[in-house]
Amino acid sequence: MARQLAAHRAGLSRTKAVRYAVVGLGHIAQAAVLPAFKHARRNSVLAALVSGEPKKLDTLGRRYRVERLCGYDEADELFGSGEIDAVYIALPNNMHTEFAVRAARAGLHVLCEKPMAVTVRECEQMIRATTQANVKLMIAYRLHFERANLEAARLARAGTLGELRFFSSDFSMQVREDNIRLERAKGGGPLYDIGIYCINAARHTLSEDPLEVWATAAKSRDPRFREVDETVVGAMRFKDERLASFTCSFGAADRSTYAVTGTRGSITLDPAYEYAEGLAYSLKVGERKRTKKFAKSDQFAPELLYFSDCILNNREPEPSGLEGLADVRVIEAMLRSIRTGKPVTLKMQQRRQRPTMRKEIRRPAVPREPRLVNVKSASQ
Amino acid sequence: MARQLAAHRAGLSRTKAVRYAVVGLGHIAQAAVLPAFKHARRNSVLAALVSGEPKKLDTLGRRYRVERLCGYDEADELFGSGEIDAVYIALPNNMHTEFAVRAARAGLHVLCEKPMAVTVRECEQMIRATTQANVKLMIAYRLHFERANLEAARLARAGTLGELRFFSSDFSMQVREDNIRLERAKGGGPLYDIGIYCINAARHTLSEDPLEVWATAAKSRDPRFREVDETVVGAMRFKDERLASFTCSFGAADRSTYAVTGTRGSITLDPAYEYAEGLAYSLKVGERKRTKKFAKSDQFAPELLYFSDCILNNREPEPSGLEGLADVRVIEAMLRSIRTGKPVTLKMQQRRQRPTMRKEIRRPAVPREPRLVNVKSASQ
Repeated sequence: MARQLAAHRAGLSRTKAVRYAVVGLGHIAQAAVLPAFKHARRNSVLAALVSGEPKKLDTLGRRYRVERLCGYDEADELFGSGEIDAVYIALPNNMHTEFAVRAARAGLHVLCEKPMAVTVRECEQMIRATTQANVKLMIAYRLHFERANLEAARLARAGTLGELRFFSSDFSMQVREDNIRLERAKGGGPLYDIGIYCINAARHTLSEDPLEVWATAAKSRDPRFREVDETVVGAMRFKDERLASFTCSFGAADRSTYAVTGTRGSITLDPAYEYAEGLAYSLKVGERKRTKKFAKSDQFAPELLYFSDCILNNREPEPSGLEGLADVRVIEAMLRSIRTGKPVTLKMQQRRQRPTMRKEIRRPAVPREPRLVNVKSASQ
Repeated sequence: MARQLAAHRAGLSRTKAVRYAVVGLGHIAQAAVLPAFKHARRNSVLAALVSGEPKKLDTLGRRYRVERLCGYDEADELFGSGEIDAVYIALPNNMHTEFAVRAARAGLHVLCEKPMAVTVRECEQMIRATTQANVKLMIAYRLHFERANLEAARLARAGTLGELRFFSSDFSMQVREDNIRLERAKGGGPLYDIGIYCINAARHTLSEDPLEVWATAAKSRDPRFREVDETVVGAMRFKDERLASFTCSFGAADRSTYAVTGTRGSITLDPAYEYAEGLAYSLKVGERKRTKKFAKSDQFAPELLYFSDCILNNREPEPSGLEGLADVRVIEAMLRSIRTGKPVTLKMQQRRQRPTMRKEIRRPAVPREPRLVNVKSASQ
């Protein structure tokens, strides 16, 4: 019986494609998610668009030839219509949980942008709702599908650098006055938006969750930073006294790098976190140095291909909801540390399986730069 | 009268050379200070050696053709003999103050390795003693005489990067079991020995003293780190909410880099702190990138040339005792923060003059690698 089901599913996976609604049509959806469907045709179809802005729906519906367009208030109707199988949530951070839960209750699989949500409690709600509905939940950590980052993690874990001792990272950019990332109520701020990359890279390369975290924030007089911090410095202590630290900033020029240093060598990614350009690493072990550059590639289509495969073949996707929750737990603790000035101890987490090391990453062609609609009110 | 004195001194500066005793013949003396005199002949003479180890005195005395050799207990006799004008203190950190004060009281000028001393109190003693004796005091921050670092600071201060927002740095190396740097009683530990470079580079590029600092330490099970921390992560808050952070470690592979990021661009030095190889920086402003490499050069001879010039022409040297004290103040506060887990507020310091920007750095040839004597018991 199980074999028949597997054979049936294997059949499906060759013939059937997962129909997605992209929910939220802000910057990340327009710049990356919608164009990625072109490279994920094997098993993924862009079937519907959901947005609060009719003009965006109209323009993007025509551009991507999507007929099923709907506003936020009509979403439940779409979700229950049988016309879609999954949602890609690209909403403002504070709306992730609501729409993930609504989608799960309608029996839809959920692929959700990071940060998974604003609070640990919300993340737990999402995990509960998708588990109860028996649908898949994946958090869209695009760098788990990116070769430079995967190779760095592989080298770090393989012992190439000796025993790992510390991690350090900078991620900064200039965020414009009218950007949603500057709104506290929508889950904005540098930790949620870019600090999460540093936290995830530290957890990913060190293969652990931190046991203690500390952070401090700079709140400048710049009017952009009325509601959120301009810059955050965060530090984490891992098992075996490994330390990690990072700086993330919305008020400084582009910088995007991390390094992992072990007893025998170090690996530095620079740029480390971008999707608009190719990434590169330099590995140094003893006196030997090696640099490797990677061509720019679509980091989003591999996520769609993989998540659709998980749905069609009934496999548990990774990065899972627990991976998303682990980062939000660190962010919440860091925000508490910023308020109190004290380090925050984290409970040891149940040992989770390490993220699957994907040996073969499909690298679809780079999409043309799409024209963006109303990016000022972009969701990400 | 003043003019006559100045003319007299100008005359001296052309004809006279400052006679130095190098006090402490450990690693830094053997690898760098003694060989540097060859490139500082214009105004500096290696006239005496002081060490607690007769074998070192003998071997190095013959190698550098220095006849005046003396043990620590005979130092006062040497200092008062009229045979030397200045001391270069390359002793273990906990002996700096004692010998600086003894030298000053004998009317000798003092050039002292960094860290200036182990405590703020000791630094203040040294400043008081040299002020009262009316002799010059300089702390041997070799990177204040190194072109890549000087250019980075100049670019940062000139506004090339826009307004400066954050600084980040890693400095790590593997320190061997028997190294003096691992002895707490001698002023060892990664903050005193290498963290001081990160602290000084942050203060130097941001042109300020920090207002608040925080640090945490990793104490590993590695038997090397019974007395001192293996790794320290430190953070500093400067005026205008500029943040700096760094990681320094005695238990990881070589890493030596810092970056200053402003509102418009960033500059990264890598390697940043070495003297055994040429340094390099990459400057990124908007989309423009520029990389500049510097040939290896003697970083120690320029210090001797400059300090001797200051003595002969009665100019106040920079980096002064106040510069040395400023870093030790930060280190003491960070050690307190490590113990308490809390940030430590620093009193606003009297505004000091910025370190002189030396436009013209003499770059003597690179000395041959000297053979080291008893390096295991090296002082630095």
